[in-house]
Amino acid sequence: MDIAKLGEFRLIRELTKDIKIKNSSTLCGVGDDCAVMHYPDSEVLVTSDMLMEGVHFDLTYTDMEHLGYKAAMVNLSDVFAMNGTPRQLIVSVAMDKRFEVEDMQSLYHGLSMACDKWGVDIAGGDTTTSRTGLALSITCIGEAARGDIVYRNGANETDLICVSGDLGAAYMGLQLLEREKSVYYGQVEELERKLKEARAQGDQARVRQLSHELNGMSDFRPDFSGREYLLQRQLQPEARGDIIARLREAGIRPTAMMDISDGLSSELHHICQQSHCGCRIYEKNLPIDYQTAVTAEEFNMNVTTCALNGGEDYELLFTVPIGDHEKVEALDDVRQIGYITREELGCMLIARDGGEFELRAQGWNPLAEESSADGKQ
Amino acid sequence: MDIAKLGEFRLIRELTKDIKIKNSSTLCGVGDDCAVMHYPDSEVLVTSDMLMEGVHFDLTYTDMEHLGYKAAMVNLSDVFAMNGTPRQLIVSVAMDKRFEVEDMQSLYHGLSMACDKWGVDIAGGDTTTSRTGLALSITCIGEAARGDIVYRNGANETDLICVSGDLGAAYMGLQLLEREKSVYYGQVEELERKLKEARAQGDQARVRQLSHELNGMSDFRPDFSGREYLLQRQLQPEARGDIIARLREAGIRPTAMMDISDGLSSELHHICQQSHCGCRIYEKNLPIDYQTAVTAEEFNMNVTTCALNGGEDYELLFTVPIGDHEKVEALDDVRQIGYITREELGCMLIARDGGEFELRAQGWNPLAEESSADGKQ
Repeated sequence: MDIAKLGEFRLIRELTKDIKIKNSSTLCGVGDDCAVMHYPDSEVLVTSDMLMEGVHFDLTYTDMEHLGYKAAMVNLSDVFAMNGTPRQLIVSVAMDKRFEVEDMQSLYHGLSMACDKWGVDIAGGDTTTSRTGLALSITCIGEAARGDIVYRNGANETDLICVSGDLGAAYMGLQLLEREKSVYYGQVEELERKLKEARAQGDQARVRQLSHELNGMSDFRPDFSGREYLLQRQLQPEARGDIIARLREAGIRPTAMMDISDGLSSELHHICQQSHCGCRIYEKNLPIDYQTAVTAEEFNMNVTTCALNGGEDYELLFTVPIGDHEKVEALDDVRQIGYITREELGCMLIARDGGEFELRAQGWNPLAEESSADGKQ
Repeated sequence: MDIAKLGEFRLIRELTKDIKIKNSSTLCGVGDDCAVMHYPDSEVLVTSDMLMEGVHFDLTYTDMEHLGYKAAMVNLSDVFAMNGTPRQLIVSVAMDKRFEVEDMQSLYHGLSMACDKWGVDIAGGDTTTSRTGLALSITCIGEAARGDIVYRNGANETDLICVSGDLGAAYMGLQLLEREKSVYYGQVEELERKLKEARAQGDQARVRQLSHELNGMSDFRPDFSGREYLLQRQLQPEARGDIIARLREAGIRPTAMMDISDGLSSELHHICQQSHCGCRIYEKNLPIDYQTAVTAEEFNMNVTTCALNGGEDYELLFTVPIGDHEKVEALDDVRQIGYITREELGCMLIARDGGEFELRAQGWNPLAEESSADGKQ
């Protein structure tokens, strides 16, 4: 259905009609000048992320539902990364005329699925047009008791450096999708070239045959079997609220924490810079999934580089006092990858062969010259 | 300076280095996964607005500083419209390669000027690229004691309907700017046509003369003298926190309130719909500035229609119990324009000649078919 016919207010009503408020802190959601919230006993956490079509996502291989899910999750991830609990999501969308009411419903469905998983309310936002492309801006509001909040600046010398899950998989997922996209467009281009040729030659039988093949391209379904995990990591990442809960149960309070969105190297530099310290991490300790390793090999890429700089892992990077070593050891899905040092010692990677390299923060820079061309650099 | 060379983190540092936190509720601003705020004794208000180039603003006549100022003010306006106090601003910007570091500095300068006026802190956000165009998403966080919050749904039969300031001026400002823009492009086109002709004829003297004139067009400065107020209302609107303060001083608590962004008619419908009531407003009571009236005349537009549907006034529309009539009467810059009726009576406009018309909510619909073509409809 055409969005213009429905109008902004009816569209918002349509999109938000099934929303049921889950948090007692959400006093008033969609439908007034502001959302109203109640946080008398804790601090309020607010984070915001902007996702632009062609830069942060590509609708040729991301559907609207996955996009909504991921957009919500990356914001929830920021609240978990402060050791907080996400409570409300404010959703702003600008879309051009390609989009229909059904697209917006899919987007909201994805957003809702992510929010439902963590008991978060969609509490408001803005819905408007853009000249070209889809723009999404999500703000997430959460809470934490003052003493529970974990900043980036609390790491101390000898602290252990830990990461949850595994690294580099989302980046390899993106490589797979990009490759299939270029294969697809290559085939379409080739068919179009042949079709033009056949038309010029007046070969009607061949024109019919090629037209048929070209139409068939819309059913193009690349075979990703065996690589599902990588695609899921790229298209449908999960915020690690489960790790936050388990750290709490285990009585572990990280000294510094953040989520890995731009790549481990880049995030480690943020923690070290803000905590005025250095670090040593061990290549052999980096958690890497089997599919990531195999696919990196296939793409002739260094898997360690992918794990260090790939980004979009949305895993948690945190430091704990060395005394918590055994408690962390007992946690599933958390790996100790190194330790914090004095600032003068810099940020170092110890390779498998014992060689030492300075860790360079070459995480994804969305403002760099080439970013819109290759998505990552 | 080129933004790509600076990179995201250094750009953010550059833009936020002079920010000094003004509110005790702002515990941690720019530089972590979330901003952290403290609101133990009041409710938290959150509002978000998305502004897209070519839809909500036109950089041919809006400079970056004005854009920042306006983007901040329209969000502060939403917090005032709940009878709250704005405290923090979260700023997300996506820009294409046309923009340089200096543009971002101007934008932040405008944002800061608006924030400084109302003691608001810039507490975080996101800075990234877009494929084409500038996108701005602003979230404003504020506070209000629970009993002070004014929603849209509290209007009662016999309540007086009031508006601050005057209406329709921002819309007439937009008409002026659009006219000058088309005059400018018309002249450029005409010169280019003549230049092409002269070149074809090999008339070198005329080519030199026309080239000179074409270069001179970059100094094109339309004469807006006598219309400064209209331009200011369009380019540099003010959030009416002063009215909120004076209502409080006067001991007036509105029963319903919102700010006028889409036009008086549209907003009145929101209040009536949410409060389950109707309204009667009087054409003769609508506050209209002299420049607005003169310019509407010049454009052959009905000034009442402009005042009812123009939008972007960012004035406050509110209802008060009829017993507050004298208190409101004593307030500068607030006009009583009508009263609330039973729902069955609908939303009515009483014309100067006594005729009654149903008020139609034909405020700006940013999702309508023609919106990107003419900005307003």
